[in-house]
Amino acid sequence: MQEQAQRPHVVIIGGGFGGLEGAKKLGSQPLRVTVIDRTNYHLFQPLLYQVATAALSPADIAAPLRAVLTKHENIEVMLADVNSIDVNARKISTGEQEVAYDYLILATGSRHSYFGKDEWEKLAPGLKSLEDAVELRRRLLMAFEYAEKITDEAARKAAMTFAIVGGGPTGVEMAGAIAEIARYTLDKDFKHINPSDARVILIESDGRVLSGFPEDLSASALKQLQSLGVEVMTGVRAENLTEEGLEVKGQFIPSRVKVWAAGNTASSLGKHLGAPVDRSGRVMVNDDLTIPGHPEVQVIGDLANFPHQTGKPLPGVSPVAMQQGRHAAANVLAMLDGRRPQRFWYWDKGTMATIGRNKAVADLRWVHFSGFIAWMAWLFVHIIFLVGFRNRVAVLLQWAWAYLTFNKGARLITRNFQAELRPPA
Amino acid sequence: MQEQAQRPHVVIIGGGFGGLEGAKKLGSQPLRVTVIDRTNYHLFQPLLYQVATAALSPADIAAPLRAVLTKHENIEVMLADVNSIDVNARKISTGEQEVAYDYLILATGSRHSYFGKDEWEKLAPGLKSLEDAVELRRRLLMAFEYAEKITDEAARKAAMTFAIVGGGPTGVEMAGAIAEIARYTLDKDFKHINPSDARVILIESDGRVLSGFPEDLSASALKQLQSLGVEVMTGVRAENLTEEGLEVKGQFIPSRVKVWAAGNTASSLGKHLGAPVDRSGRVMVNDDLTIPGHPEVQVIGDLANFPHQTGKPLPGVSPVAMQQGRHAAANVLAMLDGRRPQRFWYWDKGTMATIGRNKAVADLRWVHFSGFIAWMAWLFVHIIFLVGFRNRVAVLLQWAWAYLTFNKGARLITRNFQAELRPPA
Repeated sequence: MQEQAQRPHVVIIGGGFGGLEGAKKLGSQPLRVTVIDRTNYHLFQPLLYQVATAALSPADIAAPLRAVLTKHENIEVMLADVNSIDVNARKISTGEQEVAYDYLILATGSRHSYFGKDEWEKLAPGLKSLEDAVELRRRLLMAFEYAEKITDEAARKAAMTFAIVGGGPTGVEMAGAIAEIARYTLDKDFKHINPSDARVILIESDGRVLSGFPEDLSASALKQLQSLGVEVMTGVRAENLTEEGLEVKGQFIPSRVKVWAAGNTASSLGKHLGAPVDRSGRVMVNDDLTIPGHPEVQVIGDLANFPHQTGKPLPGVSPVAMQQGRHAAANVLAMLDGRRPQRFWYWDKGTMATIGRNKAVADLRWVHFSGFIAWMAWLFVHIIFLVGFRNRVAVLLQWAWAYLTFNKGARLITRNFQAELRPPA
Repeated sequence: MQEQAQRPHVVIIGGGFGGLEGAKKLGSQPLRVTVIDRTNYHLFQPLLYQVATAALSPADIAAPLRAVLTKHENIEVMLADVNSIDVNARKISTGEQEVAYDYLILATGSRHSYFGKDEWEKLAPGLKSLEDAVELRRRLLMAFEYAEKITDEAARKAAMTFAIVGGGPTGVEMAGAIAEIARYTLDKDFKHINPSDARVILIESDGRVLSGFPEDLSASALKQLQSLGVEVMTGVRAENLTEEGLEVKGQFIPSRVKVWAAGNTASSLGKHLGAPVDRSGRVMVNDDLTIPGHPEVQVIGDLANFPHQTGKPLPGVSPVAMQQGRHAAANVLAMLDGRRPQRFWYWDKGTMATIGRNKAVADLRWVHFSGFIAWMAWLFVHIIFLVGFRNRVAVLLQWAWAYLTFNKGARLITRNFQAELRPPA
């Protein structure tokens, strides 16, 4: 322990894709690593929508950080909320304690942005955390229970109208999954309503859904969504939100359950570095991921704005975060060796989005897939990358079961988990 | 539908073991059945302690009532909280609506009793609902996280001392599972504490643990608990509880996390029937499960006091509830046929309790088992009875994985699921 304490100390804030990859690469190296996160688990965010739509359980897509990193003697995990960073003193503070570092990797990601209308968050939750997902699952399932009980036709219709704001991958996945649940999973379970009557409306301000994808795949995604009965509205914005519905192009659409999948804002910790940030709060990093004047500080993943490769910021997706995490770790090792940090290059293997059973789009740059083949590719990649062997088997089994039977395994409405994250009481 | 509305209407309140068995038996019979529950799922309560100790996920031990009963055209599921029963008008009320019945089966079970000290509930949660289990899991895991961070030795010891009040099956299961988690699952995951140093204290006011079991099995359970390092205190009571600990025999034991597994009180709906109730609120039923003067009303499971077979009330265990549920359904069918309800006889196949890996006791009346054989029997019975095929496979897989690796799959600390059960918003 004495000897270890002399070793250079690397602090990684954030145990997401970027932070975790960085930590693993620094495991068993001659330095001390502290990974700090607000939660005790690494979350496999790309499958969060499956928790929100009752296909998977929270534990299926979350792996305890301590368990994932336990084999590395030199890595310590700390459950804490970092509230300030002092880059000159090389210290971070959690309120309870201060932690000094020699190298810092900041990987705290992003949250939803409601474009200044923070009061909309309660009306239309986003989908970033397990808590978000469980809350959306509750609203979704409760909407059908509520519709089953009431007799007022207008109120029943409003309860069975689901509006998703934002037609990127998350919005498309949510819209498809909700449509599937209504049409295939719940369809025979009610006596007074027909769940297949549910309306699912996807609202995208851009001219097409999945606007980050090539146009042919956007068109294919639109067709696949429509085949599930999703009503897609493009080129329009949600102008106002209330408990009862939302306003689009001056028209009011009654809808009790609304989902927010539009716009991100970077973690506020980015503003503590003294480095320039962009409009959504992302840190403008150098081409080696360090920040101006502080080569010992690197910013990665959704929190970083990295425009040096394509002229535009790299997208906020897990492959970017993972590659940057490994690169930042390599930079630390280089600096320890007296070498300079290296320029980062993103190796883009393509992107995919899933829409439903046998429905997806995949852009592998040299070839575009849609439908069944894209869906199989999506399944394969997501199983492979899901952290932890147990989770992979459990998820595979539940997907197989859901595929064969159209049943969803996690249809629980749970309420009032009062507990906040605080010392045990 | 017109024709169906003419059929006699059976209302079953409570979708636990008793209510669900009764409903299934009435499925596809020439009557209408409404099953009313506060939650949208049937909970497999005997495995709740495995959710509390991070071995299983909530969805593994809960099956949506609608899905379980979907194949019976004549059964309707209603998600609602019944707040009054009028046995003369033959109506129940949920606040939102009134439901008339021809036959009523009341199966709303029991909650914890804190013997008048309701303020202890926050200090030492019990284990009846999924919310309870997730809250206990959070406290348990947070205790180790907290101990890892603080430096004060006394506070650290208090955080790592777990007190379980009540040495019945639930208390014994919780004590064994917490000891196992500390010694085998978490043991290598921390840098500043050794989780195996955790103290687990089981407090039982009776002279022995598992006092409902034969003496030789109590003695065996005690030995098995001690082999896991559990400190068992018998013949003593928790005299006072505070945030910081509890008082036993005038001595204060510092302990942040406390679990309540002592004492039950019956659901308050039992008091609406006009029938006599016992000290813990259970309804004194006739020997055919009906209540005096109202053959159309039957009470089953934990809510019923049935002393007609042994002179003492039958125990509050699932086999009693299930047999009574089927019997009550048969009584309804008999009365519809113009016959009289029949006397209920409980067929007691024995009882079991598990303590940990390879550790359990089983009393099959004609033979007593303990250790590995009892544990295998316990596993077998619980897998067989776990409702729903998917759950069985998922649970089996997780148990096999946990057995081979000592890993727990659901080590999540989740916080502040704000949402209450109310219309979607």
